[in-house]
Amino acid sequence: MSSRPAAPPDHDVPGGGPSVPPPLAAPTTSGRRPTPAEEARTIIAGTNAGTLATLSEGGDPWASFVTYGALPDGRPVLCVSQMAEHGRNLATDPRASLAVVAPTAGADPLASARVTLAGAVHRPQGGAEVAAARAAHLAAIPSAEVYVDFGDFALWVLDVERVRWVGGYGRMASAAPEAYAGAEADPVAGHGAGAVAHLNADHADALLAMARALAGFPDATEAECSAADRYGLDLYVTTPRGRAAARVSYASPLAAAGELRAATVALTRAARA
Amino acid sequence: MSSRPAAPPDHDVPGGGPSVPPPLAAPTTSGRRPTPAEEARTIIAGTNAGTLATLSEGGDPWASFVTYGALPDGRPVLCVSQMAEHGRNLATDPRASLAVVAPTAGADPLASARVTLAGAVHRPQGGAEVAAARAAHLAAIPSAEVYVDFGDFALWVLDVERVRWVGGYGRMASAAPEAYAGAEADPVAGHGAGAVAHLNADHADALLAMARALAGFPDATEAECSAADRYGLDLYVTTPRGRAAARVSYASPLAAAGELRAATVALTRAARA
Repeated sequence: MSSRPAAPPDHDVPGGGPSVPPPLAAPTTSGRRPTPAEEARTIIAGTNAGTLATLSEGGDPWASFVTYGALPDGRPVLCVSQMAEHGRNLATDPRASLAVVAPTAGADPLASARVTLAGAVHRPQGGAEVAAARAAHLAAIPSAEVYVDFGDFALWVLDVERVRWVGGYGRMASAAPEAYAGAEADPVAGHGAGAVAHLNADHADALLAMARALAGFPDATEAECSAADRYGLDLYVTTPRGRAAARVSYASPLAAAGELRAATVALTRAARA
Repeated sequence: MSSRPAAPPDHDVPGGGPSVPPPLAAPTTSGRRPTPAEEARTIIAGTNAGTLATLSEGGDPWASFVTYGALPDGRPVLCVSQMAEHGRNLATDPRASLAVVAPTAGADPLASARVTLAGAVHRPQGGAEVAAARAAHLAAIPSAEVYVDFGDFALWVLDVERVRWVGGYGRMASAAPEAYAGAEADPVAGHGAGAVAHLNADHADALLAMARALAGFPDATEAECSAADRYGLDLYVTTPRGRAAARVSYASPLAAAGELRAATVALTRAARA
């Protein structure tokens, strides 16, 4: 990305900051996109390491790297040593927060999507909960097989009370814990990078047609796809009035990454109709 | 890396865990390696983003992604919005902790080197301190030029009271804050990946000679370089007795990455003498 959208209008910007051109026509797709709860679930499902905030002696905050897996309702399962400060901290005060950053190839760290979960941990109780927590952690961190049964290691489940998602510049929202627990990780997002690169490399004309005919930017001179998810495509549109973010959504949500190709072909046909 | 060293002996390991073969001879180099304070400074200097732990309302921990630069004494400089929870948290309670993970190509997240700094933040005071903090942040995050002067953003300097370094499996130590402030980031570490790959690809015989003649493993059948720093090379040595980590150090510390080639040539000559 050679540039990025201007700061949102609620920043206290000297001189008012750059302006972003609005659409000139009503978009003709719904523009549906993942909810903040879905975005958060997608980030948590997309990797296996993050940073945990716990409380050290005196209630001081302590940030430390951890690995995790996730239960089907999105609760992270940690496996940490009581010899480590974060392990001792959790045993003393269960309050904890986990920040996870989506792996990205981008050079600008603040363009990264990330999520913060906060709540309190508990040790899984009883055979079924222990087995589920153990399996969730090992599915994400197979090498934990080596130490998961060491006497100084313990599994901890983070019961999520707060969810804060940041999608990059100017895209952020909180999600209710119930919405987070009930949401699905996006089946397309994790597999979309190759498709996005292919769209930009080989189908720039189709993206431009979508931006002009479907996204409300008839004066677009260039359109670049920045992300794909189960609901649609994020575009960056260049116009004589400046650059803007735009959105085109498919006729219906995708159930699997394999449906992305047909959905973008359908969008291209709709744009050229 | 196809495998990794066994757990350190202080873990509570069922059955005692796998054993690591000791050297059969005394190593003939000093084996000097970076101090924990140097390791911590190297990690902090090597990237520009980490996760901050702050205290939310009620003293709850809150983990969030942040960018940072560093002052010459290694104190991180943050630039955060007061509209973000971490910004409000710092303004209410200055206690904070920053965890930074070294960028790595490895597939095993727990093999990553990382550091936790903890202490309290302050707003830089006076023209000189503000200018130094601003310059330190912008040197690491040039794109912050766009928002560093927004009215809702503030610079914060983390005064470091605690330093905890983890180098990967079984390598970890704390550093005194004075040692951290006085240490130098390693000039080789950030540029060593290409050299390490070259050593492994083209000079496996030289590494094996070092392992046998200098590192105390005369029965080594294979040696792989896992890291290079200003003091020497980390090796993984394969023997009929198992695999072990080993170390060979140069005759004197390197002042710049450009000296690495001559130093490894000298080690190879010493090993074959």
